[in-house]
Amino acid sequence: MMISKGPQAFPRTEYLRRLAEVKSEITRRDIDALVVTNPSNIAYLTGYTARSFSVPQGLVVSIQQEEPTIILRKQDGPAAVHQTFMGRDKVIGYPEALIGNPDKDGYDALIDFLLELGVAKRGVGLELDHLPARSAEKFKALLPQARIVDCAGAVTLIRMVKSDLEISLMKEAAAITDAGIIRAAEVIRPGVREADAMAEIVTTLLRGANGKPGTWIANPYLCVSPLIGTSHIPWTENVLRDGSQANVEIAGVRHGYTAPISRTFSIGRPSDRLRRVHEAEVAGLEAGLATVRAGRTCNDVAQAVYRTIEKLGVKKESRCGYPVGIDWMERVASFKEGDMTVLKPNMTFHLHLGNWMIDGDEDFGYVISETLRVTESGVEVLTSAPRKLFEIT
Amino acid sequence: MMISKGPQAFPRTEYLRRLAEVKSEITRRDIDALVVTNPSNIAYLTGYTARSFSVPQGLVVSIQQEEPTIILRKQDGPAAVHQTFMGRDKVIGYPEALIGNPDKDGYDALIDFLLELGVAKRGVGLELDHLPARSAEKFKALLPQARIVDCAGAVTLIRMVKSDLEISLMKEAAAITDAGIIRAAEVIRPGVREADAMAEIVTTLLRGANGKPGTWIANPYLCVSPLIGTSHIPWTENVLRDGSQANVEIAGVRHGYTAPISRTFSIGRPSDRLRRVHEAEVAGLEAGLATVRAGRTCNDVAQAVYRTIEKLGVKKESRCGYPVGIDWMERVASFKEGDMTVLKPNMTFHLHLGNWMIDGDEDFGYVISETLRVTESGVEVLTSAPRKLFEIT
Repeated sequence: MMISKGPQAFPRTEYLRRLAEVKSEITRRDIDALVVTNPSNIAYLTGYTARSFSVPQGLVVSIQQEEPTIILRKQDGPAAVHQTFMGRDKVIGYPEALIGNPDKDGYDALIDFLLELGVAKRGVGLELDHLPARSAEKFKALLPQARIVDCAGAVTLIRMVKSDLEISLMKEAAAITDAGIIRAAEVIRPGVREADAMAEIVTTLLRGANGKPGTWIANPYLCVSPLIGTSHIPWTENVLRDGSQANVEIAGVRHGYTAPISRTFSIGRPSDRLRRVHEAEVAGLEAGLATVRAGRTCNDVAQAVYRTIEKLGVKKESRCGYPVGIDWMERVASFKEGDMTVLKPNMTFHLHLGNWMIDGDEDFGYVISETLRVTESGVEVLTSAPRKLFEIT
Repeated sequence: MMISKGPQAFPRTEYLRRLAEVKSEITRRDIDALVVTNPSNIAYLTGYTARSFSVPQGLVVSIQQEEPTIILRKQDGPAAVHQTFMGRDKVIGYPEALIGNPDKDGYDALIDFLLELGVAKRGVGLELDHLPARSAEKFKALLPQARIVDCAGAVTLIRMVKSDLEISLMKEAAAITDAGIIRAAEVIRPGVREADAMAEIVTTLLRGANGKPGTWIANPYLCVSPLIGTSHIPWTENVLRDGSQANVEIAGVRHGYTAPISRTFSIGRPSDRLRRVHEAEVAGLEAGLATVRAGRTCNDVAQAVYRTIEKLGVKKESRCGYPVGIDWMERVASFKEGDMTVLKPNMTFHLHLGNWMIDGDEDFGYVISETLRVTESGVEVLTSAPRKLFEIT
């Protein structure tokens, strides 16, 4: 491959620091190699963000080697050379014969690499929360003398604490998110088809903010009356109407880093119920933000949120947030009662007062959220769109 | 849940027909229940297209019950009631306590449902090409007397042959795709940032065509010089220039159904190499199309393509297509030598002459493709954007 290295989102030292933490974890778990297959974790450790994961690929991190090795489809090798910080010899493209082949696939090539690395009788870590069962069986069958260790969540836990460089990207993403909300307030109008409103919002998320374009499209959601009791319908073919409520959840993305936000829009005067719920949820959000600080726990934040909204007559069943970073959610903690994860400086969270409930004889929903950074002394809110119930008049 | 049923993409009879085929397969495999976790397969069997699969969810199909049962996060229950054809009692929302819980998750609720169904000592099918290894272990641990059968690909194979109603949606999606290519030809201009060009293309894909909006954003790709040797970089922050080549791969989506297309754009006069490769690849594409017919095999199509382009001095390593439908690729066949899958009427394919190669001292790439339908007597090409090398002058 002749392709040149591209501009890197981070300096080499940053990737080596991350890898050093992963290698400490590898040592702690007494394994010799970790096979990373979660695309967000691969992006974190290498800079690779191309969307090639519809076929097998993986990154092998070992104690012996400074740089990890990415094994992926040959066709995607040039993208890996271009995007990752590693040397060209650390990009291994497996042949096309392994695509659409019922007998052998890209994991066979990855396992061949592990055998060459000499770990056939050693400990090998796999991300068993991500690797399909059939593929995990292949590792066990072809590495019968290896000790397979489930390393689910190991890299994601390391990802939770961001460097200042990562925080800069999160801020760039948050600025894009804010621009998307401002655009939503312009295009959510009676007579506009939901799909057309979303087209404008997504365009804004791609065009970006402050000269920095969006680098990917995170799943956007626009749940409009009578579907405000739903949370994950992207949009419909319906037309927005006077009296409609629209719950928007979107995120700008910069080099994988995602900063989500939710806001609720009312076309015309909001109902008393909507206004009452909004006031309670904003109070809950602010109580949560006031509780965030290094040393506190996820449980502390959740307690503050739930206590506040319950006092104001609103009950929320679902958790009120989770860590965010590359490709949105980091599935290793939650703002929920009983989650004793300790907050550390530069952890980033989506504090989400999304609330879907049955109210009287209908499903009802309301959303408000912010992306935040934990600091030593408190919190920095990265998103800055107006924290209000948007009234479209 | 009070939410009302929404407009369905298909009539009930269509879903029951699909389920009858799945039930035949269940009987053939001598199992009692099939647990479907691949979101595209869930969409196929129920109409559910909400994007809630970042947490566990699954559909249980059993011989005993006419309608299947979807088990998903309680918060997503209203969306399932709204979108699916089944009765409300076939939507089971599991409690929020199973979210972000290291001990129990949504699969525990799904397994509880299987136990109530009485299959503890029976055959249970799982999609082990999709279900994460850790979750598959949970099924085995909690159903220790069940016979677990790997049903990877079973539903996808059934999906390959579309009904006429599905073909109608594929045609709607293809019209949107074509509109996206036409828009690309307008916005790919020197001085335009790649992200801004993509913003316009994606807007078009959402606004749709013939009054039918796009219902989702399929991953779009814009690989521009000097990255034309890559295939899965979405876009960069670079600015398009005179002399740039741009390889575009996009797809319109209607209710999950995806009709992809690729076209190559040259800003300014194409190089002789590009023109020569284009002519060979178009000839290959047309030879492939001329070979498609019910009764022929994937191998036949691939042979025609490869023979034609090789005669014209171009060699392609990667396969030249795959079946398409819900959420783009159906991973059960390929247009490649040796794939003896027999073409049947109303199978739909993405015949893809994407070709990434090393040419002299640089990585080179060229793309052209169509979405097609197999007919008794030949082929119907669903996409209709001009089959040309777009020259932007």
